[in-house]
Amino acid sequence: MKQNKYDDPAFFEAYSKMPRSIDGLKSAGEWEIFRTNLPELSEKKVLDLGCGYGWHCQYAVEQGADIVVGIDLSKKMLMKARELTDKGKVTFEQCAIEDFEADEASFDVILSSLALHYVEDISSVFHKASKLLKSKGVLCYSVEHPIFTSNSSQDWHYENSKVQHWPLDNYFHEGQRVTEFLGSEVIKYHRTIEHNISALLSEGFEILAVLEPKPSDEMVAKMGWHDELRRPMMLIIKAMKK
Amino acid sequence: MKQNKYDDPAFFEAYSKMPRSIDGLKSAGEWEIFRTNLPELSEKKVLDLGCGYGWHCQYAVEQGADIVVGIDLSKKMLMKARELTDKGKVTFEQCAIEDFEADEASFDVILSSLALHYVEDISSVFHKASKLLKSKGVLCYSVEHPIFTSNSSQDWHYENSKVQHWPLDNYFHEGQRVTEFLGSEVIKYHRTIEHNISALLSEGFEILAVLEPKPSDEMVAKMGWHDELRRPMMLIIKAMKK
Repeated sequence: MKQNKYDDPAFFEAYSKMPRSIDGLKSAGEWEIFRTNLPELSEKKVLDLGCGYGWHCQYAVEQGADIVVGIDLSKKMLMKARELTDKGKVTFEQCAIEDFEADEASFDVILSSLALHYVEDISSVFHKASKLLKSKGVLCYSVEHPIFTSNSSQDWHYENSKVQHWPLDNYFHEGQRVTEFLGSEVIKYHRTIEHNISALLSEGFEILAVLEPKPSDEMVAKMGWHDELRRPMMLIIKAMKK
Repeated sequence: MKQNKYDDPAFFEAYSKMPRSIDGLKSAGEWEIFRTNLPELSEKKVLDLGCGYGWHCQYAVEQGADIVVGIDLSKKMLMKARELTDKGKVTFEQCAIEDFEADEASFDVILSSLALHYVEDISSVFHKASKLLKSKGVLCYSVEHPIFTSNSSQDWHYENSKVQHWPLDNYFHEGQRVTEFLGSEVIKYHRTIEHNISALLSEGFEILAVLEPKPSDEMVAKMGWHDELRRPMMLIIKAMKK
């Protein structure tokens, strides 16, 4: 059974109060790096795996994409996405990332923002992405960084209530992490950097970028994110179907 | 002035007592992964950047390489390397990695084992490697993992003398780390994963592998390296000149 945490009313309510839910992409620390590394979207067929509120779908629409498809397992997310995107410009489908089916070579770009760390088997997703992409099509995804996910606590090490450092542990012990996020228990999957890249290479992708975004100085000041410069929280990988 | 720590008699003496100095590659935790990811060496022209004792040069000779060149800044290392490699099969040159010169497109394979974290400007090394390699030539290098180098202490966090976790900090603060190694002060350079990969891509390399080797179960048991499974210490990257 795939986890559908976002249809849990309390969790969804908490998620809806995050800055990125209220203000959209401009309040997402990694967005500028993600955006500037996206391939050309104009006149392209774009698929968003785990589209959530649909911000990235809307962005693709604004960039002139021909076709935009957003999929998400959560009904509540998709209700919100339909509300926030230009009417009729995006096709939404309620389905797990692992279960999505479409014609071979039917997309130019597949993107995924902070969704794939909820998926147990990343290789099967890359296999499917490779099938769905046209030749030279691009997959661009962000996940929580392995440095962030390695330890289930997913929190700083404190002494006398003061942040000391990021406690890294269990790096090579891949798999499920039961973590606390927005006051709920959420299951994520920890995978090494090697795992991400090897899985892409095995499925015939060429690596175009491996990015560890840090928030801009402006966002650090505005959001009080000074500790975010001490360890990477996100990993962005861009790869091309050969 | 490039650091030449290995010509410091006390440091060299301490280095000569490490298992990898006494027993060679079979006592290097990352060797099996490094070895199995090397390209074909038979009849190839091979360059080893920071060859140290020359173990990798000797391995290339044994694999039937045509020409093997090993460079190192340390005279003491090269004396040892000449002693340990088959007479006359390897050309050694005393020079800093940054200063090595050779004809364009004169090598099939460039390898480097645990040397590039002593080099301040990795981009200039990749630029040179790209120049020295033939088309489709391969660069394969290991460095200390950014998770290992980020914090100057480069040691575990202990409580009551017991290892708790790996204290990660200053990840985005790249550059010099003054660390203690074998009882001496040694300067290393911390670079993110992104920095390593972006620098390679910028110099026209295609990424063939990004590996975070962990020692085998056999080595963990033999050497008592149980904590080595808690965080990566090494990073191996294999890239091809396009």
